[in-house]
Amino acid sequence: MHHDPIIQALADKQAIYELMVRYAERIDANDPAGAAACFAEDGIGMYWGEAAGRKAIAARLAGILDRFHTTSHHLSNVGITLDGDRATAMSYVYAFHRMAGTMEAMHVWGRWVDELARIDGEWLFTRREVVGVGAVNRGKDANGDTVSDVDQPGHPGRLSRQPAEDLWRAG
Amino acid sequence: MHHDPIIQALADKQAIYELMVRYAERIDANDPAGAAACFAEDGIGMYWGEAAGRKAIAARLAGILDRFHTTSHHLSNVGITLDGDRATAMSYVYAFHRMAGTMEAMHVWGRWVDELARIDGEWLFTRREVVGVGAVNRGKDANGDTVSDVDQPGHPGRLSRQPAEDLWRAG
Amino acid sequence: MHHDPIIQALADKQAIYELMVRYAERIDANDPAGAAACFAEDGIGMYWGEAAGRKAIAARLAGILDRFHTTSHHLSNVGITLDGDRATAMSYVYAFHRMAGTMEAMHVWGRWVDELARIDGEWLFTRREVVGVGAVNRGKDANGDTVSDVDQPGHPGRLSRQPAEDLWRAG
Repeated sequence: MHHDPIIQALADKQAIYELMVRYAERIDANDPAGAAACFAEDGIGMYWGEAAGRKAIAARLAGILDRFHTTSHHLSNVGITLDGDRATAMSYVYAFHRMAGTMEAMHVWGRWVDELARIDGEWLFTRREVVGVGAVNRGKDANGDTVSDVDQPGHPGRLSRQPAEDLWRAG
Repeated sequence: MHHDPIIQALADKQAIYELMVRYAERIDANDPAGAAACFAEDGIGMYWGEAAGRKAIAARLAGILDRFHTTSHHLSNVGITLDGDRATAMSYVYAFHRMAGTMEAMHVWGRWVDELARIDGEWLFTRREVVGVGAVNRGKDANGDTVSDVDQPGHPGRLSRQPAEDLWRAG
Repeated sequence: MHHDPIIQALADKQAIYELMVRYAERIDANDPAGAAACFAEDGIGMYWGEAAGRKAIAARLAGILDRFHTTSHHLSNVGITLDGDRATAMSYVYAFHRMAGTMEAMHVWGRWVDELARIDGEWLFTRREVVGVGAVNRGKDANGDTVSDVDQPGHPGRLSRQPAEDLWRAG
């Protein structure tokens, strides 16, 4: 650990960002095992259902990736909270996909909600959950399924409010 | 302040990035007051019209957010210029929206043009302007309005040039 | 160079990120010369064909930019590997475009694959290649051309696998 906590925090956030970049890169490289290696050995991947451990995560990711000719997972809004050798994070993802077979374009907007740990000096996901915010599918995939255009859990903790007077229209 | 100006600059840029992430997160959480709290007390929000102060900013944001079932503001290209306890920034935003009522998808590409200050040790927006670069609306919103597909101010300072010989097509 | 290699690495990565941000900003400002100035004097730009040196890069970029009314290049997933005064990087780009004339929206997803060097204390591109992963064009451009919807090189190093049993559907 660095003697200067400000430097250590910057380095930890950079390392966690680079883990997220590597995860997306391995997913888009159609490498489920490489993506699963971004998790702790006993990590949990929540992909519309729980996969426990790297082997199960890789199998789940392989099943998902087989549905696509192309994926491109664009990471942004990386918010990290450090707590020593532990961290939590929420980041945004926009993913472009092409369906296998039909080559239809499919777009997904979501959040990655993460728990991380520094294990033997390396930051890894101990839990990563994908939370959908929206999806647009121009057609059906090779299985004839369509992706729901609107039925998504939405932004974590999104509030309900009474409508305000629409100052925007008055402005 | 850190004795090492290189470390201080890195920490300031990280803190400003995290402010921008928090702002987008509060917007997408449908929390106008939380987003307004990212501004200085007397900050200015330019949302197609000026809102001065946190209360006015929150009211304006509430009026905008009421038009949408979903928003997802994806931050990128964060360019920050530091000047002691002041800073200016321009960042890129792509925002996915679903209209309230119709659930139509709407997409906006723009810039956040910011002025910031460190106040009591915390970086806050003193002025934030949204500059539209493009928008695509698949239909009308619940008010029957459509979002202009092309009528946008465009990238700040975008240049006019004489057309070049199209080397790309020759290449 | 900073006496602390951890700080130097963080500062180098920030400087390289800011170079990428400046490049995109100059492109979207319709400033081919400004974008070319992000390259070393003898840098190579691979834009579906090689442009060698700043003058050739600027000419190539001008020819490309002339085809568009609007561009917006959103940078993400910045992965940088440092090696002293040299670096390599791969980052993701999603670019929104409007065609000149028709104003049709065009979307491109790709990768920037970079080689960089620190020259007189400033990080510059010595080689930058654009690799397409996908594109969607809602129509034809002013030249009557359409952008291939699917014919793209794809993610660098993307693997082929035997399909896995689809655990996702079973899950």
